[in-house]
Amino acid sequence: MQDFLPVKGTRDFPPEQAILREKIISILKGCFQTFGFDPIVTPIVESFELYKGKSGEEIENKLIWRFKLPYSEKEYALRPELTPSLVRFYSRFRPKLPFKRYEIGRVYRYDDPQKGRYREFWQADFDIVGSKYPEADAEVLNLVIYTLKKLGFKEFEVRVNSRILLSSLLTKIGIEKGQRKIVYREIDKLDKLGEREVFKNLSKFLDDEKVEKLKEVLSLNFEELENQLVEEKEEIKRIKNIFDLVEDKSKIKFELSLVRGLDYYTSFIFEVFLKEFKRSIAGGGRYDNLIEKFCGKKIPCIGGSFGIEPIIDVGLEKGIFNLDKKTYAEIMVVYFNENILKYAWELTSDLRNQGFKVFLDLTRKNFFEQMKLAIDRGIKYAVILGEDEIKEGKITLQNLETKERRKIEKEELKEILYTSLK
Amino acid sequence: MQDFLPVKGTRDFPPEQAILREKIISILKGCFQTFGFDPIVTPIVESFELYKGKSGEEIENKLIWRFKLPYSEKEYALRPELTPSLVRFYSRFRPKLPFKRYEIGRVYRYDDPQKGRYREFWQADFDIVGSKYPEADAEVLNLVIYTLKKLGFKEFEVRVNSRILLSSLLTKIGIEKGQRKIVYREIDKLDKLGEREVFKNLSKFLDDEKVEKLKEVLSLNFEELENQLVEEKEEIKRIKNIFDLVEDKSKIKFELSLVRGLDYYTSFIFEVFLKEFKRSIAGGGRYDNLIEKFCGKKIPCIGGSFGIEPIIDVGLEKGIFNLDKKTYAEIMVVYFNENILKYAWELTSDLRNQGFKVFLDLTRKNFFEQMKLAIDRGIKYAVILGEDEIKEGKITLQNLETKERRKIEKEELKEILYTSLK
Repeated sequence: MQDFLPVKGTRDFPPEQAILREKIISILKGCFQTFGFDPIVTPIVESFELYKGKSGEEIENKLIWRFKLPYSEKEYALRPELTPSLVRFYSRFRPKLPFKRYEIGRVYRYDDPQKGRYREFWQADFDIVGSKYPEADAEVLNLVIYTLKKLGFKEFEVRVNSRILLSSLLTKIGIEKGQRKIVYREIDKLDKLGEREVFKNLSKFLDDEKVEKLKEVLSLNFEELENQLVEEKEEIKRIKNIFDLVEDKSKIKFELSLVRGLDYYTSFIFEVFLKEFKRSIAGGGRYDNLIEKFCGKKIPCIGGSFGIEPIIDVGLEKGIFNLDKKTYAEIMVVYFNENILKYAWELTSDLRNQGFKVFLDLTRKNFFEQMKLAIDRGIKYAVILGEDEIKEGKITLQNLETKERRKIEKEELKEILYTSLK
Repeated sequence: MQDFLPVKGTRDFPPEQAILREKIISILKGCFQTFGFDPIVTPIVESFELYKGKSGEEIENKLIWRFKLPYSEKEYALRPELTPSLVRFYSRFRPKLPFKRYEIGRVYRYDDPQKGRYREFWQADFDIVGSKYPEADAEVLNLVIYTLKKLGFKEFEVRVNSRILLSSLLTKIGIEKGQRKIVYREIDKLDKLGEREVFKNLSKFLDDEKVEKLKEVLSLNFEELENQLVEEKEEIKRIKNIFDLVEDKSKIKFELSLVRGLDYYTSFIFEVFLKEFKRSIAGGGRYDNLIEKFCGKKIPCIGGSFGIEPIIDVGLEKGIFNLDKKTYAEIMVVYFNENILKYAWELTSDLRNQGFKVFLDLTRKNFFEQMKLAIDRGIKYAVILGEDEIKEGKITLQNLETKERRKIEKEELKEILYTSLK
């Protein structure tokens, strides 16, 4: 068996899974387009250079698929995320601003495979290039909430935070800039490890007083924060402006302990959690300095990403999605014996020319095997042709869901199928 | 500039190109589904092992993206084509036969980039696993012709041949098995290099008499062939059966000099050419031994592949496609000044909730800049909100194509947009 498996951390998707993935991707595209985002496509293979010192140490050092080929000295990488390619794309084409793009595709990390983590997986990114205003942040939040509802999710929480407020608080309680990365990384694990474990780990780097203070400030709500952080009036006002523009405020929760893994975020960040589920299914934030680092021009950006895998995993677990649809075919033309094949062939052709999705056996199975195949695949209608039908110029139509079967005129067939399938 | 380019042989697609690609891929999917094919998804990264000795020397030795990572000894490859993954997939899951699948995705060759040739490109594959019967071959041809017509192509030619007939002819004129590969490779270049060049090259390997004979037999038509190759009665009957089942016979041309590059084809092969164009835009054939080589079980297969790049290149050149559609957005909500932003925000939200695709400026451009952006992007409608409109509870609707502008009631807006856009 081993030989037939895909390489570790990658997966094959049989039709029922591929059909579900196509459906989800199509909903995502529809939502992005509704919000005025347009697609771009960038390569999966990029220069390793593109990721150096940009996404964060973790991705760069351990997790990148980086390699040279036998034919050249160039170091390539399989993209670990989509944002750097967008930054390169912007720098190259300089489209008019605001530039709102989506890209849905495969990304690669050389992670240790475990439940829900893969080495090849899919992300659906949406970004707004060129706006520093709170309405851009709010549009991103509205899009996320709109999309999750369209996908069928009801109980979710969009946690938001500001890196500016968080780092200002850390400074205030005496945590220096050099220690901030470590503190961020530990706080980021709160959901996974729990408070006790995280603060125990933090006490290796910080003295007890600071750990206590940190515990205290992280539990502040937005109003308390407002009173404590008078020096960050502007950012607090900005966050309030964003909240004002969010359509469904009940989905938003301010959460000072939200950090996000990537280094390049500058202020507003968000992450979507589902109750009783430990993985986030979407997240993003503002990265106002990344384009400048790349091409010298300061262009504010905000964006986010849906994880196709967590969306599917959670959706299946919660019964929002299922794998029942095993084929797109709506009709199977079933013929009694080889003499009838040519009539079946014509009828199939006829139905296809009218836009129906039609399966026809090509292996000369007998009637019962053909019917079994249609039922196994979950095809709704069998259009049956036997000697009698040919003689009478009729066909037998069977609804394989209700088992109802009747002999009808050919002209009737199209009408019934149209009403039922279109 | 160099730094902002994607790596050699790969490409970025701005919205107008990405939108055209999405459209073409969606037509292809629709056609595959109409013919009862279902999607599978397989990884882009596979074991290099999978391609060894299977696709043919050329792909294996020079053209594969093969590599190791710094973290392991395993040799990976970026898939150079989709068929080997299908064979692996079949061997792993053994789905019920006939198994008709499509897969549309990126493939990689480390080719020298030149006009129309890329190192990362897209293929749309469709295959029927499990049928040895001529109706499978005919279904493939019908699908190809149906799809090309749906894409908008009119003048194309599906060249077909049989490797069995060709090799039988070569044996007959005294070309041994050991020379066959070379002869195939040279014949394959007839379209590119022309007869003179090809036969000159062949005379390096074959004596003059054989070259002359080869020239002669390659120009045989199907009827002449039938008389000359009485020993291949069965294959000739098979080809005739296939032809009988093809719906539009005017598109099919038997062409003994058709070879196809891949080693694994066993009998029936085809390739689609456009008049006045030297690249094929689709091709395929029967490979009845490939699965057996892989998992020991003999399972006949036939399939084909559309090349997304040649389809787009030719389609653009011939005016079948264009790059006019620069955005999916149908409406831009335009507001006169910042005081009106919140009304524009609500209206935008309202229109999006009804399923319209709406762009809203998020960079606080003035009215004229907003209008300019809408026109530049090719958005059809501007829904304009100014002080007057707010006071009167109306909106101004401008059709940016006809320039027609009128002030209307809000209730009217939805009706007009529905009629025009849905």
